[in-house]
Parts: sequence; C-alpha cells; structure tokens
Amino acid sequence: MTDTPQEALQYARDNQTRFIDELKELVRIPSISTDPEARDDMLRAAEWLAAHLRQLNCQNVQIIPTPGHPMVYGEWLEAGPDKPVALVYGHYDVQPAEPLEEWVSPPFEPEVRGKSLYGRGATDMKGQIIIVLKAIESLMKTSGMPVNLKFIFEGEEEIGSPNMARIIEEYRNLLACDFTVNPDSGMMAADIPTITYGLRGLAYFDIVITGPSQDLHSGLYGGAVHNPAQVLCELIAGMHDEKGRITLPGFYDKVRPLDENERLEMKRLPISDQDILRQTGAPALRPEEGYTAVEAVTGRPTLEVNGLLSGYTGEGSKTVLPARALAKVSMRLVPDQSPQEVRQQLEQYLEKHCPPTVRWEVRQHAGGPASITDINIPAVKAMAEALERVWGKRPVFKREGGSITAVADIQRLLGAESVLTGFALPEDNMHSPNEKIDLLSFERGIDAMIHFFSILGQPAG
Amino acid sequence: MTDTPQEALQYARDNQTRFIDELKELVRIPSISTDPEARDDMLRAAEWLAAHLRQLNCQNVQIIPTPGHPMVYGEWLEAGPDKPVALVYGHYDVQPAEPLEEWVSPPFEPEVRGKSLYGRGATDMKGQIIIVLKAIESLMKTSGMPVNLKFIFEGEEEIGSPNMARIIEEYRNLLACDFTVNPDSGMMAADIPTITYGLRGLAYFDIVITGPSQDLHSGLYGGAVHNPAQVLCELIAGMHDEKGRITLPGFYDKVRPLDENERLEMKRLPISDQDILRQTGAPALRPEEGYTAVEAVTGRPTLEVNGLLSGYTGEGSKTVLPARALAKVSMRLVPDQSPQEVRQQLEQYLEKHCPPTVRWEVRQHAGGPASITDINIPAVKAMAEALERVWGKRPVFKREGGSITAVADIQRLLGAESVLTGFALPEDNMHSPNEKIDLLSFERGIDAMIHFFSILGQPAG
Repeated sequence: MTDTPQEALQYARDNQTRFIDELKELVRIPSISTDPEARDDMLRAAEWLAAHLRQLNCQNVQIIPTPGHPMVYGEWLEAGPDKPVALVYGHYDVQPAEPLEEWVSPPFEPEVRGKSLYGRGATDMKGQIIIVLKAIESLMKTSGMPVNLKFIFEGEEEIGSPNMARIIEEYRNLLACDFTVNPDSGMMAADIPTITYGLRGLAYFDIVITGPSQDLHSGLYGGAVHNPAQVLCELIAGMHDEKGRITLPGFYDKVRPLDENERLEMKRLPISDQDILRQTGAPALRPEEGYTAVEAVTGRPTLEVNGLLSGYTGEGSKTVLPARALAKVSMRLVPDQSPQEVRQQLEQYLEKHCPPTVRWEVRQHAGGPASITDINIPAVKAMAEALERVWGKRPVFKREGGSITAVADIQRLLGAESVLTGFALPEDNMHSPNEKIDLLSFERGIDAMIHFFSILGQPAG
Repeated sequence: MTDTPQEALQYARDNQTRFIDELKELVRIPSISTDPEARDDMLRAAEWLAAHLRQLNCQNVQIIPTPGHPMVYGEWLEAGPDKPVALVYGHYDVQPAEPLEEWVSPPFEPEVRGKSLYGRGATDMKGQIIIVLKAIESLMKTSGMPVNLKFIFEGEEEIGSPNMARIIEEYRNLLACDFTVNPDSGMMAADIPTITYGLRGLAYFDIVITGPSQDLHSGLYGGAVHNPAQVLCELIAGMHDEKGRITLPGFYDKVRPLDENERLEMKRLPISDQDILRQTGAPALRPEEGYTAVEAVTGRPTLEVNGLLSGYTGEGSKTVLPARALAKVSMRLVPDQSPQEVRQQLEQYLEKHCPPTVRWEVRQHAGGPASITDINIPAVKAMAEALERVWGKRPVFKREGGSITAVADIQRLLGAESVLTGFALPEDNMHSPNEKIDLLSFERGIDAMIHFFSILGQPAG
C-alpha cells in the first residue's frame, strides 16, 4: 500500500467550492460541436482549457487547429524520466441542448439544485475534465505531482471525432505516452465504482428519401404519387426483423460472438432490467431476442433511429404529401465491424428495397470502430485500487454501449491502452435535457484521481 | 341562347388591374387558420370581406362568431322573388406557408411574375372568391344582377371546417337557398373547363408514440429500450400492404366500388399519367393495384403520412434515442366511409399492432365525409353553358381527390346541391410553396361567372 496523499485530499476538500465555480465557468460556454454557429464558443472553450493548463505550469501549451474544431495540447514532464507518462484525454464539446423547453434551468446557465449541478456538459464531460485537472492541482499544490502528464482535449467527440486519427498521426511524437487516462465513461451507480474495458463503435447516417419535386396537395395527388414519408417508414421498418435483429445484408458477419465467460460476468453486474426501466421510464424493455438487456446494450450491435423529419409537423392539420423525408439513423458497432462496411450494407439494403417511385440518398457522419482495452496493464490496476480506496469496494469491469472514437484511434496509432473510467451516473441525463453532475460523485472523483496518480508515482516493485 | 352580357364583360375588362390589386390586398393578410397566432389576421380577412360585401350593397352583412374562426355572411335579395337564390360559398383561410425558404417571393407579399400572381391563397381560394365578387360587381354596375345572392365565407376550410355544420344548423333559415356556388375546385388544365361532382372526405390524425420519459443516450440504452421512432415507422409501414391497399380493419367495408360506367368516364378524362408525372416531378406513380392513377386519386380512399417528427433533426449527428415520435396521418374518404368509423379502425389497428414497449395516442383533427353532387340541376347546366361560352368547349365532369367539408354539410343540412367549379390550375402549387393564380384564368373565370349569373337570371322556359 502507498501512503495516503493526505495533504492533497485536504486541499481538494478546502477548495471544493472554487472547483465547482470553475466548472460552472466552463459549462457557461455553449460549445456545441454540431452547431455551425458555435465556432466562436468552441474556440472560447479551447482557450479556457489552454489557460487552465498554463495555470498548472504546463509547458508547450497550444491550440492545434483541425479542419473542424481545434484541439488543446499541454504537457508537464517534471516528474522525472523514471516515472510514467500519462496522456489525459478529454473533449470540451457538448451535445445540442434541444428540446430547450424541457430544461428546468437554462442549459448554459449552470445551477446547483439539491446535490447536483445542472447544465449541458456538466457531466459529459466538462465535469470529468475538471475532476482530473483539480486532482492534479491538488497534488501539485501539496505533495507534488508524481507522474508525467500530457493533455489532449478535442472539440469533436460528440460528432464522432472526425479529425482525431489524423491529428494523432501528425503529432505522434508529441503525444507519445505510456497510457491514456480517459474519464469519459461513467459509473453503473453512485455506489458502484466502474472501469470500462469495451466500447461500441458508431456509424451515423442521414437517409433522405425524395419523391415529388415539392410538397403536394394530398387530396389532389394522394393515391397516385408514392409518399416519401411512407416509403421511409417502410424502409426503416424493414431494417429489423421480428426478433429485433438487423436485416442489413451481412451486418452480423464480422460481429464477434459474446463468449460464455463474458456473458457470465455480465450477469454478475449489479444492474437489472428494473434498474434500466427506472432510469429510462420506458414501459418495457425490448432487447434483441436471445440476449439480456445488459448484453444487448454493451456486447451487441444496434441500429437506432435518432431522428425523423418530413412534411408538416406543426399544430393542427396540413394536408400535404411531403416531397422528402429524412431519417437520422445510427448503428452502434462491436468488434470487428467497421463503419465503412456498415455503410455499404446500408446502401445495399436501400438499393434492393427502395422502390423506383422515389429516390434515396445516404450521407455519412463521422464514426469509428469498437474497442476493447487490456485490463491487465499497471495503470488499470492502479485505477482499480484508487477507486477501492475511495468507495471501499473493488470496481466492476464492464463494457459500455457508448462510443469514444479516440480510444480506438489512440490504441491503433499510439499503441497506448486507455484507462477508461469516469464519475457520471446513469441518472445524470447525459445527452438529455437537465443534464447534471452529482456533486458527491464530483468530490469522490477528485479523491480517486489523487489516489490514482499517487499510486502510479510510487517506485516500482 | 341568352343575350351576351356585353356591358358587364367590358366593365370587367376595363377594371381588370384594379381587380388584381384588390386580390393582392386580400392575399397580404396572412390568414392561416391552423396557426394559433394568426387570430387577428383571421379577423382582419373576415372584416375585409364584410366591407367588400357592403360595397356591393349587400344587406344584413355580419361576422358570425364560432368557437374557432368567424364566418362572414351577407345577402342581396333584390333580383325579385321569381329569381333563384344562389348561396356563394368561399373560405378566406389559407394553408401554412412553410417551407418558407422555398418561396421565390414572400408568401404574403403578392407579386406578379410572368402571367401569374404569386402568394399563399392567390388561387386557394382568395382568387376564386374575388373572381365571383368581381363578376357580381360587373353585373351590378352595368346591366344589373339578375339572381338573388347570399354569401357565406368561412375561415376554417383548411382545417376541416370544424364549425361549419353547427353554424349551418343554427342559421338554417338565413342560409336557405336554391343552390350553392362553390368555386373551390379547380380545372384539369388551362384549356379544360371543369365541373366537379364528387369530393373525397377527410379524417386527419396525430399519432404519438412515447417510450422512455425523456430522450436517452443511444449508446447507453440503445438495444435495451425500444425506440419509439422505429416503432412508429413499423406501425406506419404496416398500414399498407404490398398492393398499396390500406390494412386498417374494415377500412374498405363501406367503400362504394367504382362502377364500370364511371371508370370508362374517368378513362376519357384528358389527363394521363404523364401529366401527373410532369405536374409533380415524381420519379414514378404508384396507384393502388388494380386502379389507374386518376381512379386512385378521385374514387379510392387513401392514407397519407402528412408529417413525421422525432428526436434530433438538425445538422450533423446527435446520438439520441428519442422519447417520442409523431406522425400526422390523414385518410381521404369516399362514399360511404365516415371519419368516426375510420378513427375506430385506426385505434383497433394500433391496439392490435403497437407493442407493449411503448404507448400510443391518437388525436383527431376535424374532417368530414365524401360527397357526390347531382349534376342534372339547372345551376349545373347553367355553369356548363357559361364555361362553354368562354372556353368554346363543353366542360369535363370529374370527381376530385380533395375535400370540402362544407359541400357535404350544405347538402345534408340545407338540402342544397353545390355547383362546384373554379379556375385554379394543377400547376398553381396549391398547398405548396410558390402558390400562384394564372391571370388569364382569373380573367376568364370572371367572364364565366358573369355568363353563369346571366343565364340563371333568364326567364324560365
């Protein structure tokens, strides 16, 4: 056992209020990466982080431009050459806040209510970035930072990290590290510390069906002209069979089956169908036939409709036969599926099933493959111990349904594994209205990260 | 043959520019009945028409309040008790103008381009109302108006005339007439004068599918929670079979089959599949199996998706599993279907096919049954003769796919048949962006209505 970093923990306790204020500052910047009008705010958020790294005495702090939103880099390499180099990953962009009318307080005016801080990005993942930075500050201001640090903060995670791979390749030497600390995955519950070792990949598409050259009067042409919204519904309906399996040709060919050991582990996870029902408010669950809900959301690929838009959607009645219909559809991928192969499968499906009475078009947004992390590296073991010290119990190891493109990119291009953890809770409304961070988890997260770096900095042996 | 009303025709020719200016005035009022914020504009449009009736020396002009938008009444009964009473019907409300970005000139800033006047309502049906009023003015200012007149202008036709029936019942004596003149149906082409003898009915619904209590992260819950947008697509897809027939239970039970004579008549109509393709820009037609496109749009019921809305529909990618999905769906009805029976069929379908993983809800907007007019009454014969005088050929008689609730209401409650005609062209973009009225058709329409009233005013025999 290492010594407890008592001074650093006390420092964190004493400065908790200021830490929360600094998180509020960052949440106030509406850095919505998918919004073309948010470019200035994106840059403001990047500059806020760069300034923060400079305050931590980081060197070589820079804003790296990309064809999209910029990345922030910084380093602190004064722990000594015998100490490991940890690359801290984060993303400063957030999801859009719509539907705005469902927020109790405005998404970019952070507000503490009860024991949570509410705001878009409070937990995903500005809060997680602040947790790591404040743990580092607490060590630096007291007993000292015992490991070397590099930082890379991107602004495009919520849109699939389209520039991550190319920047990693270009800055391969700058980013070289022993492992990555990635706090972008969450906890299974407030009392269940969690390490994630698998992530699903993502392939995201707009499917556009067009028929007549403009919206038509449904009385004058309905019955003669095929309705693009109806065709879209039929095409989407056909993408699943009655067992909840996806029908795109070859979709499961490269899917690695869950082995029996992994299925047994998943059954032991402290999460039940009842938990998921409570968290979501859904009337009933509907996993793919033959799989539990937990298996389905972590180890099986899915195809989800993320959005539908066609024709008249306002109040009352407008008797229009729409000229076009849009579906936003995304697939979560598991090893060894690839986004490009899935695109081909989708196009083959549409080619075969779309009737000649309309035209179809597919536009692909950024995405990436799934990833599985080696959980036997020292950094993962250190994280497990750190979490145990704070929560008093061993963490659970799980695969997660979400996607973090950077994890697979870093693994492939830098040869570095990621320690994937984080302190977001299922009830924190990630990607939903009223996103929040639980302030007790925020505090415990900082403590855990202080322990983590302390353990890593101990002399080997 | 009656004498040609030469003076009135000349008056119309001399005042054509002013007539168009008056139409522009009315088009400038954005009287969108489905828009809750347009109440003041609705009243302004009603008052504009009331003032116009007073200028025509009408008596008893009044604005009749309803639970929705008001109606305008007026009468001119000075032709003598031996002359028939014509009830002129019109609606001063218009369709919403969205999508606004597709209009070349703003929808409520009428503009003449080429030989058309562009603006929402220019042809449907403010232009048609002005045609009738200006024909009446031309007669009144010259040889005199030879028939008695009543006017009823409603403000809710585009939302299914929810208050028409009750107002007709309440004002039954005031509205008593020999027949109705209803210029709300169009021409098959600019050189084909047309009388419509059948209209489809309408039943319009919002279908709302709800699942989780709020939008979810599609990575964290996709695969476990059934996606309401996907379920909606599956439900809508199931509403048609592969022959294009509607699968709601009992939907065709009350549908009167088209008899062979009527099908032969329809085959003689001067409209081809090529015409419909050209008018709509659709890649191919898709009528119900066993029917021609013309049969399908006039004599067969349909079920159309008028709108779809769910989840994220903006730029880029948002990985959301939507909490709810909305479809706006409407059925065009033929004799002897009723909107209430169709609602029951829809609910039975949803009850049977909607899975327990989501909830469904149906909201009904106003609608009405189909109608068939007796084409052997004197007023229809007079209209046929009037059209022939202007166009030099007999009109075609057709059924139309659209719905005008007032026609069935007036037939049922006042016992009066409607003379259904009008001068809108298929290329006038009714219910679409860039709605327009063809100014030559506008001029000919006024001439035809002058002839119509003149013929009707001739001594019997």
